[in-house]
Amino acid sequence: MMEPLFDKVAVIGLGLIGSSMVRGMKKRDLAATVTGFDGSAEVRARADVLQFCDVIAETAEDAVTGAQLVILAVPVGAMAAAAQSIAPYLADGAIVTDVGSVKAAVVRNVASALPEHASFVPGHPVAGTEYSGPEAGFAELFAGRWCVITPCERSTDASVEKVVALWTALGSTVETMTPEHHDIVLAITSHIPHLIAYNIVGTAADLEDVTQSEVIKFSAGGFRDFTRIAASDPVMWRDVFLNNKDAVLEVLGRFSEDLAALQRMIRWDDGKSLEDHFSRTRAIRRGVIDAGQDTADPDFGRYHGDSD
Amino acid sequence: MMEPLFDKVAVIGLGLIGSSMVRGMKKRDLAATVTGFDGSAEVRARADVLQFCDVIAETAEDAVTGAQLVILAVPVGAMAAAAQSIAPYLADGAIVTDVGSVKAAVVRNVASALPEHASFVPGHPVAGTEYSGPEAGFAELFAGRWCVITPCERSTDASVEKVVALWTALGSTVETMTPEHHDIVLAITSHIPHLIAYNIVGTAADLEDVTQSEVIKFSAGGFRDFTRIAASDPVMWRDVFLNNKDAVLEVLGRFSEDLAALQRMIRWDDGKSLEDHFSRTRAIRRGVIDAGQDTADPDFGRYHGDSD
Repeated sequence: MMEPLFDKVAVIGLGLIGSSMVRGMKKRDLAATVTGFDGSAEVRARADVLQFCDVIAETAEDAVTGAQLVILAVPVGAMAAAAQSIAPYLADGAIVTDVGSVKAAVVRNVASALPEHASFVPGHPVAGTEYSGPEAGFAELFAGRWCVITPCERSTDASVEKVVALWTALGSTVETMTPEHHDIVLAITSHIPHLIAYNIVGTAADLEDVTQSEVIKFSAGGFRDFTRIAASDPVMWRDVFLNNKDAVLEVLGRFSEDLAALQRMIRWDDGKSLEDHFSRTRAIRRGVIDAGQDTADPDFGRYHGDSD
Repeated sequence: MMEPLFDKVAVIGLGLIGSSMVRGMKKRDLAATVTGFDGSAEVRARADVLQFCDVIAETAEDAVTGAQLVILAVPVGAMAAAAQSIAPYLADGAIVTDVGSVKAAVVRNVASALPEHASFVPGHPVAGTEYSGPEAGFAELFAGRWCVITPCERSTDASVEKVVALWTALGSTVETMTPEHHDIVLAITSHIPHLIAYNIVGTAADLEDVTQSEVIKFSAGGFRDFTRIAASDPVMWRDVFLNNKDAVLEVLGRFSEDLAALQRMIRWDDGKSLEDHFSRTRAIRRGVIDAGQDTADPDFGRYHGDSD
């Protein structure tokens, strides 16, 4: 039997991502003990019933004491407070990592809150579903998926190696980039798609001439899958937009400009330009398929493979 | 054995929808003979190889001669020409129907081209995939899906009844509304989602700082499923936007206004309003699920049930 990667791991935040990491680590014996903590007493109670952690701690102090690795799995806007709450109790040389969907802001807010002896390895598993909470987690959420690591001044080589080993063991492929580059790549591939999905569902709800029951009935025409990502956790996404403001506003500006150009083509009956644009995007779609990054099933990134 | 609904049916246009209708009718013995025709000699040759029609006609005249039902399954912009090409050869009392995604413009263009003795029943099966052409069709495309019928001045009660019977036999549930109302309902549930999907794929391709390989790699964060609907047939969609201009521009104007409001919330750090908006759209998503209009699998309207 292989030695576990860590003796004790603490996971702060037991929602979809945190609880999936615990389940994945326990399933693969990556840690001798996993202690979970959540700021909400109600979530702690639900996690306790589900029994996926070895221990549910009642305080952040109890959770991190003696842990070699501490994983911050809270919304991006709660990262600074979470880092402050664990800082005084971190074991000597402890590694802290996070799973936030925004990286530059997290590096700014978390690194400065941690003691000198600890290292910090910012991370972002590009995985998720539209469900939230400890009940929604599952061990294979990260299998076959990408995880981005964005080393900062507080990341030692040894700590990066350990965190990469963890994600690799959970089934992910790790890619390294700067926090700033991560934030612009994710703005276009994830943040703007979510914003648009949230927006169109709101627009539909406000149309006076179309009933909600009609929207629901005919949603198979394309709308349905927009509602899916618009069901994602509101607090998590509020924090993503507030903390990745510059990249989101930059990409959103381009999106709106491009949309105005399409709108003008429609208004002026410019069929040739419309067809050219639609043909071009179709070619890009083929690129996604050819690169093996998609199957015939739309899945918002769920893992379909066999997990055992 | 049940009597077939029709003795001879002609299908003009053998792409995804037309070829799926032929397959569905043959599988269920709804017509004694189905004759197919397509304006493209190359598509006719491919359909001939696939053998889903009883006969592939070499001209529109041969296709419709003696048919009790003629189905126009061509892009919306080609409907007028298709109607003109069959008009002189229609059997006495023939029923003409169509499958266009826009209805008011089709009613305007087709009804006037048909002879007095024929009736016209505009229809729109809300079904499709991102694939095109005769190879992409399958008999169960319409099973468990909605079909909208929008009767016009040229629709007799008897002809509407026949067309409703056809769609019901193909497994669809039929809803009747005016062409104008159809066009606004579909603008929000289908046309605008497609336009936005086409648009965001173009925006992503034009970002200087993000490579196409990065967009593809991290597309699981939400972008991937936008590329799917952006792979739909360019000519079909060009025609939809040009022919449903008023409703599309109206709904698009509202969408852009709403998006500008979200953009402003982000710029001014208005977390409370963002969270409220995201919570509201989440509730609408629950409505879609509660109404039984969705399963756990995103599918852009594909039929997952057992077909036999």
